[in-house]
Amino acid sequence: MTTKIPVVQQILTANDQIADQNLITLNGKGVYAINIMASPGAGKTSTILKTFELLKNKVKMGVVEGDLATSIDADKADAAGIPVVQINTGGGCHLDAVMLQGAFPQLPLSDLDLVIVENVGNLVCPANIKIGTHKNVLVASIPEGDDKPYKYPGMYRGVDALIINKMDLMPYIDFDLDYFLKGVEILNPGLESFPVSCKTGEGFEAWIDWLMKQVKSHDG
Amino acid sequence: MTTKIPVVQQILTANDQIADQNLITLNGKGVYAINIMASPGAGKTSTILKTFELLKNKVKMGVVEGDLATSIDADKADAAGIPVVQINTGGGCHLDAVMLQGAFPQLPLSDLDLVIVENVGNLVCPANIKIGTHKNVLVASIPEGDDKPYKYPGMYRGVDALIINKMDLMPYIDFDLDYFLKGVEILNPGLESFPVSCKTGEGFEAWIDWLMKQVKSHDG
Repeated sequence: MTTKIPVVQQILTANDQIADQNLITLNGKGVYAINIMASPGAGKTSTILKTFELLKNKVKMGVVEGDLATSIDADKADAAGIPVVQINTGGGCHLDAVMLQGAFPQLPLSDLDLVIVENVGNLVCPANIKIGTHKNVLVASIPEGDDKPYKYPGMYRGVDALIINKMDLMPYIDFDLDYFLKGVEILNPGLESFPVSCKTGEGFEAWIDWLMKQVKSHDG
Repeated sequence: MTTKIPVVQQILTANDQIADQNLITLNGKGVYAINIMASPGAGKTSTILKTFELLKNKVKMGVVEGDLATSIDADKADAAGIPVVQINTGGGCHLDAVMLQGAFPQLPLSDLDLVIVENVGNLVCPANIKIGTHKNVLVASIPEGDDKPYKYPGMYRGVDALIINKMDLMPYIDFDLDYFLKGVEILNPGLESFPVSCKTGEGFEAWIDWLMKQVKSHDG
């Protein structure tokens, strides 16, 4: 087994080096980027579409969609008028820095202020893979259950902000928000969290404020 | 890169060999086993608890719980009176045959008819990993959205039965069941599917009938 360890380290290092290059590319163009992660169906694409709707008069935004297969999410973004690139991982359970690097030439980076990258739907694999964005954001959702921070600690530990989606379903689901947030606090003390509903628009002001603050502080 | 390919093949072969040994062990004890997979929070544990409640007078059932961390699910099974073993993968995104093999000595296999293995919550990684059960079952859920078969084809292609959980939330969610089932049919023609609600118990008769048929045909 010892012969394999250096190979793995080398691969990780190569990924991290390219992630650093991606940040240099983004900074050179004045683009702020976030990496959105979540379980399948938590509402990554809906969050992106709603964010675009609320930001489009203030910020020029592009999207990179990561999926195992299909261009369903990219088609939705394209229909909304967002510059978008689809990455199909062909079965791979997370994006990596090389994939994001490959998407850059297909985006009008010089014209953009913000790029949102939608990672593959997965609470495990993308958790500790740097792709070269400024921040990592997790979208949780009420129907997933209030025990998810406890069960997927690596993901909750590694993010810079937390969107809690599908708040409109709260009356129909047994979800203890205090228990959920207690788990989050243990793993990631002080993590900023934004309870929202992509369906009703509830709670989006605070998320948009946070995001605008990030984009502006990056500009300045 | 060429030097790494044989290593990967060797690992896969070793896993599959142990998976075959697991089946031999189970068959020797007259135990039928299923591997339940799903996104995080789709309702694997709830499905197992409801199945136990409905089967406990007919079939002796045990459970193996796979999680990254914690024994939350195993504690629930234990509280319900089900013989249970917890496997923590320590970050690994799926169970493998060695992990299942390691769980066997901790279960009273000679006294059991059925073992349900709950895999790690993930629609990508567990899809093509044999662990040594007789059938693979996927739990989908309405809040995940109707596009999941199209976006996670490897998982939908590789299973022997499909439970569609949280049907009670249908009135509150935009979910096109025809579109969902069309995607399932393309990937896995003729797949038996069971719309249920773990909350209300709706639809469980058909699932229990299917499962009882599997267990009995295995006995005979």
